Amino acid sequence: MKPIQVGLLGIGTVGSGTFQVLARNQEEIRRRAGRGIEITMVADLDTARARSIVGDGVRVVGDAREVIANPDIDVVVELIGGYGIAKALVLEAIAAGKHVVTANKALLAVHGQEIFKAAHEQGVVVAFEAAVAGGIPIIKALREGLTANQIQWVAGIINGTTNFILSEMRDKGLDFDVVLKEAQRLGYAEADPTFDIEGVDAAHKATIISAIAFGIPVQFDKAYVEGITKLAAADIKYAEQLGYRIKLLGITKRTERLQADGTAVRGVELRVHPCLVPAKRLIANVEGAMNAVLVQGDAVGATLYYGKGAGSEPTASAVIADLIDIARLIDADPAHRVPPLAFQSHTLAAAGGELPVLPMADVVTSYYLRIRVADEAGVLARITGLLAGAGISIDAVLQREADEVGGEGSTQTDLIILTHETREGDMDAALAQIQQLPTVLAPITRIRKEELN
Amino acid sequence: MKPIQVGLLGIGTVGSGTFQVLARNQEEIRRRAGRGIEITMVADLDTARARSIVGDGVRVVGDAREVIANPDIDVVVELIGGYGIAKALVLEAIAAGKHVVTANKALLAVHGQEIFKAAHEQGVVVAFEAAVAGGIPIIKALREGLTANQIQWVAGIINGTTNFILSEMRDKGLDFDVVLKEAQRLGYAEADPTFDIEGVDAAHKATIISAIAFGIPVQFDKAYVEGITKLAAADIKYAEQLGYRIKLLGITKRTERLQADGTAVRGVELRVHPCLVPAKRLIANVEGAMNAVLVQGDAVGATLYYGKGAGSEPTASAVIADLIDIARLIDADPAHRVPPLAFQSHTLAAAGGELPVLPMADVVTSYYLRIRVADEAGVLARITGLLAGAGISIDAVLQREADEVGGEGSTQTDLIILTHETREGDMDAALAQIQQLPTVLAPITRIRKEELN
Repeated sequence: MKPIQVGLLGIGTVGSGTFQVLARNQEEIRRRAGRGIEITMVADLDTARARSIVGDGVRVVGDAREVIANPDIDVVVELIGGYGIAKALVLEAIAAGKHVVTANKALLAVHGQEIFKAAHEQGVVVAFEAAVAGGIPIIKALREGLTANQIQWVAGIINGTTNFILSEMRDKGLDFDVVLKEAQRLGYAEADPTFDIEGVDAAHKATIISAIAFGIPVQFDKAYVEGITKLAAADIKYAEQLGYRIKLLGITKRTERLQADGTAVRGVELRVHPCLVPAKRLIANVEGAMNAVLVQGDAVGATLYYGKGAGSEPTASAVIADLIDIARLIDADPAHRVPPLAFQSHTLAAAGGELPVLPMADVVTSYYLRIRVADEAGVLARITGLLAGAGISIDAVLQREADEVGGEGSTQTDLIILTHETREGDMDAALAQIQQLPTVLAPITRIRKEELN
Repeated sequence: MKPIQVGLLGIGTVGSGTFQVLARNQEEIRRRAGRGIEITMVADLDTARARSIVGDGVRVVGDAREVIANPDIDVVVELIGGYGIAKALVLEAIAAGKHVVTANKALLAVHGQEIFKAAHEQGVVVAFEAAVAGGIPIIKALREGLTANQIQWVAGIINGTTNFILSEMRDKGLDFDVVLKEAQRLGYAEADPTFDIEGVDAAHKATIISAIAFGIPVQFDKAYVEGITKLAAADIKYAEQLGYRIKLLGITKRTERLQADGTAVRGVELRVHPCLVPAKRLIANVEGAMNAVLVQGDAVGATLYYGKGAGSEPTASAVIADLIDIARLIDADPAHRVPPLAFQSHTLAAAGGELPVLPMADVVTSYYLRIRVADEAGVLARITGLLAGAGISIDAVLQREADEVGGEGSTQTDLIILTHETREGDMDAALAQIQQLPTVLAPITRIRKEELN
């Protein structure tokens, strides 16, 4: 069979990895795919650098639209990133009848509906294994490996930068700011690390996961996003003493329950935030810049997928796996393809329909609270009384010696409380009251806790 | 589209799980597969029990050949197990033009070549996700998720019974025999546990993995198989002190090296044996009856897949995933299918060809040695001298106090040695010499060690 001709838009880190792996493993790939896969055209603004990577056998152009316009190109690989020009080019490639492979999570999380709709109408594939958790084949696992299951929840360490920072904070007992600088120096964090440390990148990926796990539209605007910038070394230490690790998790969960007042809550949770996880769980032991995704299905139970979530060749591994999937089915009737969002497109739930993304107030989870209080009698009783009044029950309390926390002669101490599961709306109300107590001396730290079992 | 009609051969634990999950999640499965999947016929010797599981809507027969002969049946699911009648039925189903899904690792590891050849000639699929690591989609990961990679090695905890026993031995400091009885009482080990504890089940699975990882034939007869029956509580304890855990691993690895004498060794290692693994590796922390498979690819690096390796619904999850894959492509040209052994059949290596399975003497690994010696001067020097003479270098030595090992007044002690990597043939020769020393008082314990990095 004739080789598949691929055009790359953008040849930076992932693009050059894709070119190199395709070249190095071309024989192995041909034996698997049943046909060759060749990058025959590359568009990059820096044509000289692009030329230095791909050599003379590949056509290099400065204008991505030349790739899209080339009738010989079967698949366009978009590696530009961002929502701007990348969006226009992906839509133009689809309109031109090209299959598209992309690693662009931001684009899919925000504009996915429009893109998938256009692809469906044109009868082309938009594949995106590389957009979530780099080289780990988690999209394939969710979309094909676990198809027998009702997915109940997915919880993942899906941002390597923040996991590296949290690992370092725990290992070395350092605060966030110090470790961030170190991570930037080592290349684990970008010069502008906002998307990573504020949880936005993880939320893009969690949004894509929620869509394929539950057959709902990508709805990034409904995701709850909280980063790691306010985490203190003290919280990591206290969590450790209680048998937990703190990880930045992307969580999406199907929820259905009847509330005390008789109203039903039914929908999908979609949230990214720091989270206490029992130290004995495998996912709590994922260190450094590694990623891991834990999936709970009703038949299979928990399965976990672990590996490198970023980097040139790990991400290229996912891009090429998508190219091979496309190569196998490029001449087949579209009915034979795996639907890009896991469910057949006419069966996808509507946004806000039967499975709406729930507001955070309706999320039920347990909590870690760190409350800086005056070290005097009756403080604990008043706080636990307010929690009890809000129907929140307590799992464990850790009260430190004032000296240990504030130094010798200190009149302040930290009160650490782990709660049982409660509605976030109820917790918000209780914390607002507790914050008003005169013996509470600083803003309360509240970190959610998941048992993941 | 018309639903796919499935016939089950055998409705025990996995069969009833498959029936129940298909019924419970039928709506979700239809939304994913684009068509229904229905079990319309079941064959089991115990027709009364079969009837009690499937109710009145399904035809129950005592003779599996009635299922195969039924022209309405699209897919036959073989859940009988073993090499006997299961082999005949699978070949007959293929001859009748049925697609086959099987969880039968023993059958595929031993007779896979014959079965895959027959299926290829008939243009039908033989799918076997459930045969390796239960509900973990590891076959799909290797065959489709990691297709861009040259797989370098795979190491897996792929037998839950032995992992449960090893976890209990470590947790409770008990010897193998005691824990085996406990495991049998709890249902984690069968009344005749031979296949599990002698490593045969793990070797069946490792054999299948080796075929799809490297594009070689299934060659169970070439696998090296060593179980856990000779492991002592003392070895687990010493390993722990040195920073290792002992796991029963199925390992398959592509090897190519030039030896000192100028000859080349090129082939695939295929071995199951107890193995020291650094305690900090994620796979070393897989406890109880859980499975995990670690895959090293040249582009993606290490990825790990974790979950339940057995049980009714976890295994059913894998069976149904295969059924959905088949449902999607049942009307398509066979050229569009993923090849069952990952590589297009005409590109599979021949047995004993370019990538032969290597004899254990040619395997290079490092070792843990426990040598019971007389507690007298010069013993360590003689032993290390013999190792050095064989070109084996030492990584660490742990010498226990005689009293601690043999009780007060003991004149015997344990010498624990970790070696660097060496050829197994050279280690065998050195150990034969050491075993002859008059100061070596018992058979030497030798456990292989893998860093898995």
